[in-house]
Amino acid sequence: MAPATTRFEQAESDPEISKEEARPLITELRTELLKAQYARLENPQRSLLIVVAGIDGAGKGATVNLINEWMDSRHIRTLAFGPPSQEEAQFPFLWRYWKHLPAKGRTGIVFGSWYAPLFRLLNEKPGKKADIEQLAQSIREFEALISRDGVQVLKLWYHLSRDAQKRRIAKLESDPDTAWMVQPQDHLVARNFKTMRAAADTMLELTDTPFAPWQVIPSADDRMRNITTGNAILSALRSRSPSPPKLNAPARSTPPRSVKRPLARVNYSVSLSENEYDDQLAHWRGRLARQVRSQAFQNQQLVLLFEGNDAAGKGGTIRRVTHALDARQYCAVPIAAPTDEERARPYLWRFWRALPARGHITIFDRSWYGRVLVERVEKFAKPLEWQRAYEEINQFEQQLAESNILLLKFWLAITKDVQLERFKARERSPFKPFKITEEDWRNRGKWAAYTRAANDMIDFTSTPHAPWHIVPSNDKRHARISVLETIVKALDERLA
Amino acid sequence: MAPATTRFEQAESDPEISKEEARPLITELRTELLKAQYARLENPQRSLLIVVAGIDGAGKGATVNLINEWMDSRHIRTLAFGPPSQEEAQFPFLWRYWKHLPAKGRTGIVFGSWYAPLFRLLNEKPGKKADIEQLAQSIREFEALISRDGVQVLKLWYHLSRDAQKRRIAKLESDPDTAWMVQPQDHLVARNFKTMRAAADTMLELTDTPFAPWQVIPSADDRMRNITTGNAILSALRSRSPSPPKLNAPARSTPPRSVKRPLARVNYSVSLSENEYDDQLAHWRGRLARQVRSQAFQNQQLVLLFEGNDAAGKGGTIRRVTHALDARQYCAVPIAAPTDEERARPYLWRFWRALPARGHITIFDRSWYGRVLVERVEKFAKPLEWQRAYEEINQFEQQLAESNILLLKFWLAITKDVQLERFKARERSPFKPFKITEEDWRNRGKWAAYTRAANDMIDFTSTPHAPWHIVPSNDKRHARISVLETIVKALDERLA
Repeated sequence: MAPATTRFEQAESDPEISKEEARPLITELRTELLKAQYARLENPQRSLLIVVAGIDGAGKGATVNLINEWMDSRHIRTLAFGPPSQEEAQFPFLWRYWKHLPAKGRTGIVFGSWYAPLFRLLNEKPGKKADIEQLAQSIREFEALISRDGVQVLKLWYHLSRDAQKRRIAKLESDPDTAWMVQPQDHLVARNFKTMRAAADTMLELTDTPFAPWQVIPSADDRMRNITTGNAILSALRSRSPSPPKLNAPARSTPPRSVKRPLARVNYSVSLSENEYDDQLAHWRGRLARQVRSQAFQNQQLVLLFEGNDAAGKGGTIRRVTHALDARQYCAVPIAAPTDEERARPYLWRFWRALPARGHITIFDRSWYGRVLVERVEKFAKPLEWQRAYEEINQFEQQLAESNILLLKFWLAITKDVQLERFKARERSPFKPFKITEEDWRNRGKWAAYTRAANDMIDFTSTPHAPWHIVPSNDKRHARISVLETIVKALDERLA
Repeated sequence: MAPATTRFEQAESDPEISKEEARPLITELRTELLKAQYARLENPQRSLLIVVAGIDGAGKGATVNLINEWMDSRHIRTLAFGPPSQEEAQFPFLWRYWKHLPAKGRTGIVFGSWYAPLFRLLNEKPGKKADIEQLAQSIREFEALISRDGVQVLKLWYHLSRDAQKRRIAKLESDPDTAWMVQPQDHLVARNFKTMRAAADTMLELTDTPFAPWQVIPSADDRMRNITTGNAILSALRSRSPSPPKLNAPARSTPPRSVKRPLARVNYSVSLSENEYDDQLAHWRGRLARQVRSQAFQNQQLVLLFEGNDAAGKGGTIRRVTHALDARQYCAVPIAAPTDEERARPYLWRFWRALPARGHITIFDRSWYGRVLVERVEKFAKPLEWQRAYEEINQFEQQLAESNILLLKFWLAITKDVQLERFKARERSPFKPFKITEEDWRNRGKWAAYTRAANDMIDFTSTPHAPWHIVPSNDKRHARISVLETIVKALDERLA
């Protein structure tokens, strides 16, 4: 057998601790764990997500039970995932982990984590190098994002020597009362130990990061395993000042002054007559109606996202789209202030939560781009937060694209004078008083700042898989037709 | 053809309104609708749930679009349901409607509502009278419960004469741009009109209640349909003082003083030695472990519910149960203060939300019984609220039983002196300081009131399908074994 790699050397020496040595350590550990847990709950800045992974038959399950016993289990949620269900398989593989992120102050223990597919891939031979690197990168990005945004990630790898693993499961099996704890896969470990260890070594190497480090837990001896686990959790809980991975501010080249910014390149003078509009509306709406009722669409997931200046006509445009849809297949999600469940989690959480299943459509009326628009301009987000959001958003949309979810992003653009006309008209209209508030006038005062933010957004997040569609909207009729046409053509291409 | 019943007489006269008459009415209606919607949002006491049902091809879809246009659609959610998905079919038929109840202040429009199965049943011949009555009763109970608890229910039935319906769909079909709006079932209406009308008449008769009345909307003329709908919504929004259906306080016979109350009948002196305990624990835990891993269990849904005195040992007992389970198949839900998403909905909502799918187990550490325990004693609920909760809870559990969901309810009972010992021991223990707070001591001061509440609860909610298991818990070992044994035997019976 090859010599143990350095990473696992200590764990494979199967260290033990005697009952007498362990007792006082455990007493202190339990007291301190509870204190640390309560300190977190009183000041819920971050959640703690503990990834439990490792060699089969190393006692991971027993450890989770123990954590629940040592700490206050009312604030711990065990999140255990098996093979993805049919529903889960429709979404990016991280979807189900996103959905179950614990709230700030809480602790989540993840079994069957996002490392399961990577570990499986690494155990295959020949390993698919490109796939492996892509998966590892998605994982690094995911952990970087959530750890910057209030989720502390602690990753534990349970390890022991081949012989100790064999002995451990043999002992469990010999007693009819514990035999059920042994899983079929526990028996495969001894045979494939070398491959598994090599796979584990590569996996930990690829995903050991300063913000989400791996820790190897020696697991041959129950007491040693428990105490090492407890200590790992304790130091995680105690690391009070969140030290999120500081990305360098994105190296954005400021465009030279001679280059027109995206919104300055828009031709605002396009328009449609009422007759042209009626004809075209019926035409595109009819086509859209037939597309979304087609057999092919039943396997498609569609996300429509609308951003734009205040009074650019998002609501009216969205209604022209939904008129063609079956009310059972779409969900319109207006993005307003987050609920407290949403506020307690990374900002992208609520959007992951609203992604459409197959044959369904989610329409976002404002979106995750709030991070780099209103949150930037109004200073709700810190500069580093909104600056790194461009990259985070690109990664998020990349994952949607990889899952074959069609995302269409529309920016409805109007000029400052048209906005003024519409604000005034709204004030006069008996139906639209709710559409014009003090806040709208205040935002208008920051027209230049919002325009700069929108230009940056378009520059930095127009990607091949999710380009921005900039829709001149001074003429509402033209804007609506343009949006409908874009959707129909994109669907034509996708469903062909 | 039989003469129109009185209920539909007016709608089948296909009343019309001219464009000139309609215009000023609509202008006023839109203004008032917006005002009323905003008044609700500012003072979110209730949500409004609009049930849209009626004859196929009467223009229900168009009306929903219109409501979204006339009101501020950002605060309206269209909830459209088709045939239940495989997942939905596992649960009581009301589950999916529960899950999507709008928050207070908001408006939900329900398409494909809980009336769909009843209407289907009523159209069958021969109608199954018992099934029909049972379904109608579930619906009445559901609407009574949610309307008492902050959801206002407005039910609209779209109706028109047979000839008008034929004309309406023929007109839509004649234009290629609107032809897609016509559904296959729209063509069946004319042929089955008499049967459908009779079914509708019976359905409305069975479910027309003071707290959730039906309103028939004449639908032959678009303007008339729209205006009537708008007016119905407006008066619903305006009815400011919630007049929830006042149930009479449940006619509970106070038991004669000579009859011992349930908790006074408990034999608290039962106990197990450490050796007996170890043997039995291994035995029952092993059996449970095998049961939940069996093929038969993969179709079973299991709910375990734990209530009891403070310090009765709920946490420790739950851990003994979960040790036997696969972490992937259970979810432990500790019931603490509701989140704001939960607070904005009827109190049973968060429990509906947590029901297990097939092959899964939900363990409630405290539960919906909080309504008749802590909320009663601490006066968080008004007398009428907790008094009617007995019946509401029985109905809820009845629905679980009808869906083949196995519910086991445990009351862990200790005596006052044992509680005192445990409180003191907790104060001394370095591991359990979090388990004893000022509040526990305060609650202890209300021992008699809590005991009375628990006795009433046991008396009023021990039903054949969901009896209370009262577990003497002065001896923790005995309590744990008793719970495990009860679960194993219940599963044995169920899975046989």
